[in-house]
Amino acid sequence: MTDIATGEDALLLDAAAADLLFHTARTANTFSDDPVSDEQVRAIYELIKWAPTSMNAQPLRIILVRSPEARERLVQHLSPGNQAKTQSAPLVAIVAADVDFHENLPQVFPHLPNAKDFFTEPVAREQTARFNAGLQIGYLILGIRAAGLAAGPMTGLDATAVDKEFFADQPLRTLAVINIGTPGENPWFDRSPRLDYDQVVSAL
Amino acid sequence: MTDIATGEDALLLDAAAADLLFHTARTANTFSDDPVSDEQVRAIYELIKWAPTSMNAQPLRIILVRSPEARERLVQHLSPGNQAKTQSAPLVAIVAADVDFHENLPQVFPHLPNAKDFFTEPVAREQTARFNAGLQIGYLILGIRAAGLAAGPMTGLDATAVDKEFFADQPLRTLAVINIGTPGENPWFDRSPRLDYDQVVSAL
Repeated sequence: MTDIATGEDALLLDAAAADLLFHTARTANTFSDDPVSDEQVRAIYELIKWAPTSMNAQPLRIILVRSPEARERLVQHLSPGNQAKTQSAPLVAIVAADVDFHENLPQVFPHLPNAKDFFTEPVAREQTARFNAGLQIGYLILGIRAAGLAAGPMTGLDATAVDKEFFADQPLRTLAVINIGTPGENPWFDRSPRLDYDQVVSAL
Repeated sequence: MTDIATGEDALLLDAAAADLLFHTARTANTFSDDPVSDEQVRAIYELIKWAPTSMNAQPLRIILVRSPEARERLVQHLSPGNQAKTQSAPLVAIVAADVDFHENLPQVFPHLPNAKDFFTEPVAREQTARFNAGLQIGYLILGIRAAGLAAGPMTGLDATAVDKEFFADQPLRTLAVINIGTPGENPWFDRSPRLDYDQVVSAL
């Protein structure tokens, strides 16, 4: 599916990988019954963990919703149009930002022992956490595809209510919910148009 | 370099692509003189544009800093430790969120003609723009690597000052600056540790 006309011959990434991650992969709205194993989730994490974050802060937290009871508690906080998808997905993950990520800096940024002191201001720290967790959710969506699975990321939810429901005593801010599995019947809508290059890229 | 012990045999992505995007790829701190062409940037965009955003909103804007004069205007707003890297990189890009992304929804989300009306509230709209542009910066960093180039993303900068310097009359919010090129001499530090799986992934 690689399109030479768009200059993709300038890429080093092989066509099969480009298809797996970008061209053929789609956001799935229905899923088969095939389970998603913890081993698959581990393989995805062990791949994407290497992609960069600011000061190696790695604020993303992935909360797998494995129990039917927890799934019901989550579904009530989703937009009505998202509830059926999450009820039927083989695996559902809440992806959140740890706003106390700086506590890990002595472990993950050891060459600057006082790095954690840069993040005493909670509003700026939350913004850093949200931005870098956003990068990591991008990596995660591609990592799910790298495992041959489809991701169904959703932001149509009451994030504050999800935090209260599950993370009342934890420094986590829910950013999205991702349905994960093998596509089912009629899994996707027609692909929506992307912005043209000139609408996105400009030069100074 | 694929590590079977971490369960990466559960991935469908081939080892060469996993190395190119995640394992071998590193954040570069020095660059060679090899230029980065507009054709390469176009190939990167034409690849990553397919990765998903909420309601297909695509708020990321990429501003290539091509002129020496614009580069000097940018460098003054970077943290001192980041200035030399950006002075010497073959290509520098400002990556920003378009907080008026909703104006494009009739084009990019045509099956819901009133989608744009969901985003009349500017604070929530900016949060949506920042989150989705964050996802897209994650895709972009991997896309730069897919072109065989190294990315040097940086958030150590005065984003408000960059907005004022370049985007005073545009609805853009600078999120990061990315140095792009082929690695130069001593291009990277030792790799910093990643969080363990159990520090990141939990289950409900």
